[in-house]
Amino acid sequence: MAFTDELEPEADEIWTAIVEHPMVRRLGEGTLDEGPFREWVRQDYYYLREYSRTFALAASSARRLDRMGTFAELLHSTLNTEMDLHRSYAAEFGITEEELEATDPSPTTRAYTDFLVRTASVETFGETVAAILPCMWGFNETARRLAADGVPDHDQYAAWIEMYEGEEFTELTEWCLDLMDEVARESAPTDRERYRERFLTSARYEYRFWDAAWRRETWQV
Amino acid sequence: MAFTDELEPEADEIWTAIVEHPMVRRLGEGTLDEGPFREWVRQDYYYLREYSRTFALAASSARRLDRMGTFAELLHSTLNTEMDLHRSYAAEFGITEEELEATDPSPTTRAYTDFLVRTASVETFGETVAAILPCMWGFNETARRLAADGVPDHDQYAAWIEMYEGEEFTELTEWCLDLMDEVARESAPTDRERYRERFLTSARYEYRFWDAAWRRETWQV
Amino acid sequence: MAFTDELEPEADEIWTAIVEHPMVRRLGEGTLDEGPFREWVRQDYYYLREYSRTFALAASSARRLDRMGTFAELLHSTLNTEMDLHRSYAAEFGITEEELEATDPSPTTRAYTDFLVRTASVETFGETVAAILPCMWGFNETARRLAADGVPDHDQYAAWIEMYEGEEFTELTEWCLDLMDEVARESAPTDRERYRERFLTSARYEYRFWDAAWRRETWQV
Amino acid sequence: MAFTDELEPEADEIWTAIVEHPMVRRLGEGTLDEGPFREWVRQDYYYLREYSRTFALAASSARRLDRMGTFAELLHSTLNTEMDLHRSYAAEFGITEEELEATDPSPTTRAYTDFLVRTASVETFGETVAAILPCMWGFNETARRLAADGVPDHDQYAAWIEMYEGEEFTELTEWCLDLMDEVARESAPTDRERYRERFLTSARYEYRFWDAAWRRETWQV
Repeated sequence: MAFTDELEPEADEIWTAIVEHPMVRRLGEGTLDEGPFREWVRQDYYYLREYSRTFALAASSARRLDRMGTFAELLHSTLNTEMDLHRSYAAEFGITEEELEATDPSPTTRAYTDFLVRTASVETFGETVAAILPCMWGFNETARRLAADGVPDHDQYAAWIEMYEGEEFTELTEWCLDLMDEVARESAPTDRERYRERFLTSARYEYRFWDAAWRRETWQV
Repeated sequence: MAFTDELEPEADEIWTAIVEHPMVRRLGEGTLDEGPFREWVRQDYYYLREYSRTFALAASSARRLDRMGTFAELLHSTLNTEMDLHRSYAAEFGITEEELEATDPSPTTRAYTDFLVRTASVETFGETVAAILPCMWGFNETARRLAADGVPDHDQYAAWIEMYEGEEFTELTEWCLDLMDEVARESAPTDRERYRERFLTSARYEYRFWDAAWRRETWQV
Repeated sequence: MAFTDELEPEADEIWTAIVEHPMVRRLGEGTLDEGPFREWVRQDYYYLREYSRTFALAASSARRLDRMGTFAELLHSTLNTEMDLHRSYAAEFGITEEELEATDPSPTTRAYTDFLVRTASVETFGETVAAILPCMWGFNETARRLAADGVPDHDQYAAWIEMYEGEEFTELTEWCLDLMDEVARESAPTDRERYRERFLTSARYEYRFWDAAWRRETWQV
Repeated sequence: MAFTDELEPEADEIWTAIVEHPMVRRLGEGTLDEGPFREWVRQDYYYLREYSRTFALAASSARRLDRMGTFAELLHSTLNTEMDLHRSYAAEFGITEEELEATDPSPTTRAYTDFLVRTASVETFGETVAAILPCMWGFNETARRLAADGVPDHDQYAAWIEMYEGEEFTELTEWCLDLMDEVARESAPTDRERYRERFLTSARYEYRFWDAAWRRETWQV
C-alpha cells in the first residue's frame, strides 16, 4: 500500500471539512462575498513567496539530481510565472501589486509558512515533501469536488476552480504524491510516522487558511 | 537612544495586555484554576525544547566567540538544568515526565516555536536575538508587576513569580536586552526595522501563549 | 567607488595567475593534453551541482522577491540546461553520463563546494553573493584574456572560450557584479570586510581548481 | 556487527598513517621542532571554534532530548572550558590570545571545518555524527599508540598525549562511537553508506591537518 494511500482517510476528512466550510462552499456556488476572497488573494500572495522559499530549501537538501531539478523548475515557475498570474488575478479584484507586496501575513498565514520554512530548514527532505504536499493535494481535491457540483456563475471563482482542477495542476499534484510515495518507500517506519505528522499539520493549516480569510483573522494584541 | 528603549512603548502595551489577561491576573491573585495552568506547564515544556533549539542555532550563527559561548551556556543550562526544574515543578501538579514528553503542541505553541526556529535558521543573528528577547523580557516584566501587587497565597504560583522576577532571571533579561542593543548599534536602519518586527511577533505570541492555555486551544480539524 | 571596483586589484592578481597557469595557457594555445582537461570536465560537473545548491540556498535567504526570482532562474537554467550542455560537451571527450555522475570530488573540488554551501547555509545573503561571484567573474575574465590572444585550433577549447567570453555569460557576470555592488551599498563596513574575505577565498579556489585538475590531485590517504 | 566495527579496518589504515607521519612520530619521541607544533596549536584553536559550531548545529537537528542535551554539554564545555585550556597551553609556547584569535585558517583547516559545518547544516543528524567522530576517535587512538611507546621527555608533548589518551577523553570517544552505532542501527543501508563516506572524509582530513601544519601550508595565490 502506497504511503499516500495510508494518508488518504485522514486527508479525506480534512478535504471534506474544507469543502463544507462556508467560504469554500460559497465560492463553489458563486455566492461568496468578494471581501473575504480579496483577503484570501492577498494572503495567498504572501504564502506563495514562502512556499517558493520552501521549494528552494527542498532543492538545496535534495540528494538526487533529478529531484533538485524538479524543485528548481517548480521554484522558477512559481516565482516567475505563477506570481505574475496571481498579480493579474488580484488586479481583477482591484488589488494592486503594491497592496500585494505590503500585505502583512495573518497569524495563520505566518504560522503555516513558518512551519513550512522551519521544516525545510532543520528537518529532512522527506518531512519537507510531506509538508509541501497538502497545498497541492488539498487544492486539487477541493477544486475537483466543487467542479463536480457545476461551475459557479462568477468568472473569477470559476477560473479558480478550473485552474486547480485542471490538467496541469492535477499532474503537479500527482508528481508530488508519487514523490512522497517514493521517499516513504526508502525510509524507516519512524521516519514515515514523522512524515504523517508533518502532512497532517499542513493539511490542518489548509483548512485554517480558508477560515482565517473568512474570519478576517487579526492578532489580538 | 538604545534600541530596546525604542521598543519599550510597544512592548509595554503588550506586557500590560498580558498582566490584564484573566489567566495571568488570577495567577497573581492565587485564584487561578489549576486546569489551565497544567495545560500551560505542559505547553511550556514543549516550548523550552524548541527555545533551546533556537539557542543552538543562535550559537551556530554567532560570529563572536563570546556570543557563541553565552548561547552555549544558555542552551546547556536550559536543557540540562531548567528542564529538570520544570519536571519537578510539573510533578507538583501531578504531571509525569511521560505526560510532558507526550504533549502535542497547541496551534499557538507550534506557531510560536516554528517562528523562532525558522527565524534562527534562515535569518541573521540580529533577527534571532530579537525573536528570543520577548520571552525573557515579558516573563520578567509580568512577574515583577504581579509581585508588586503582593505574592499570592498559592505555593506554586508564588514560586512562579519569584523565579521570574528573581535576581538570576532579571540578570538574564538584562543580558539579552544589552545584546539586542549592541547588535542593533552595529546594524543598518533597515536591519533594525526587521528586528523590531521580529520582536513584536514574539511579544504577540507571548500574549497568545497565555490565552491559548486559558482557552485550551485545539486544532479545529 | 563601487565595491567590486575596490575588489578589482586583488581579483586581477588572481585572474592573472590563472591565465598564466600552464593548464590555462595551453588551453588558450590549443596545446593542452586532453587528460587533465577530461579531469577538469568531470570535476566541473560535480561543481555545477553544488554551485546550483548554493543558488537554491541564496534564493531561500533572499528577502527581495526580485532577487529570489533571479536566483530561481539561475538555479533552474543551471540544473536543467547547463548541465545538459555539460553532458554533451563531456561526451565529445568520450565521458559518459554515468562517469560524470560517479565522479568523486577531488580534495579541492570538495573544499571549494563545501565552502560555498557552508557560506550560503550559515552566513548572510551578502556573503553568499561574494562567494558566488568569482566563478562567474573569473571564467569571464579568463576567457576574454585568452580570446584576446586568438582562438585555439582545437574545437572544444575554442568552444570553451567562446562560451565564457560570449554575450550571455558576460551579461550574467555583470548582473552578479551589480548585485554585489548593490548589496554592499546597503551593508555596514564590517559586513563589506567579510564579503571581501569570502570573495577572495572563492577566487583562490578558482586558481586551485585548475591546478588540482592539472596535478590530478588525490587524497594522500 | 556494530557500524563502527565495520568502519574499523579503513579507520585503522588512516590512524596508522597518522602515527607514522613525521610530525606525529617526532611528537611521540619528543624530538618535534616547536615551529610546526606552534602552527598546529594556532590552527587547532580555529578548528575548535568551528567544531563547536558543528556541535551547536548537531544539537539543533537532534530530535531526541537526551541527544540535544549531550551536544549542548559538549558545546558548552568546548567553548567555555576546552578553549581556555587551549589558551593556557598555547601560552606555554609563547602564543598570545590575540595571536590565536587572529590566526587565518590554512587551506586544510578551512576545508575541514567547512566540510563539518556544511554537513551539519544541510545533511542529517547521522551524517553529522559521522563527520564529528574521527576527530575524537583519531586523537584518542593516536595518543594511545604514542603512549604505548613511552611518554616523551618534553612536558607539553607529554601533556598532549596524556590528555587525549586519558580517561575523560576516552569516555568522550566511546560515547561518540556508541552514538554512531545507535544512529546507524536506526538507519537504512543507503544512509549508512553516506555515514561511511562522511566518516572517511573527516578521517582523511585528520591526516591532512597534521600534514598541513608540518608543511606550513599556505594558499598558492
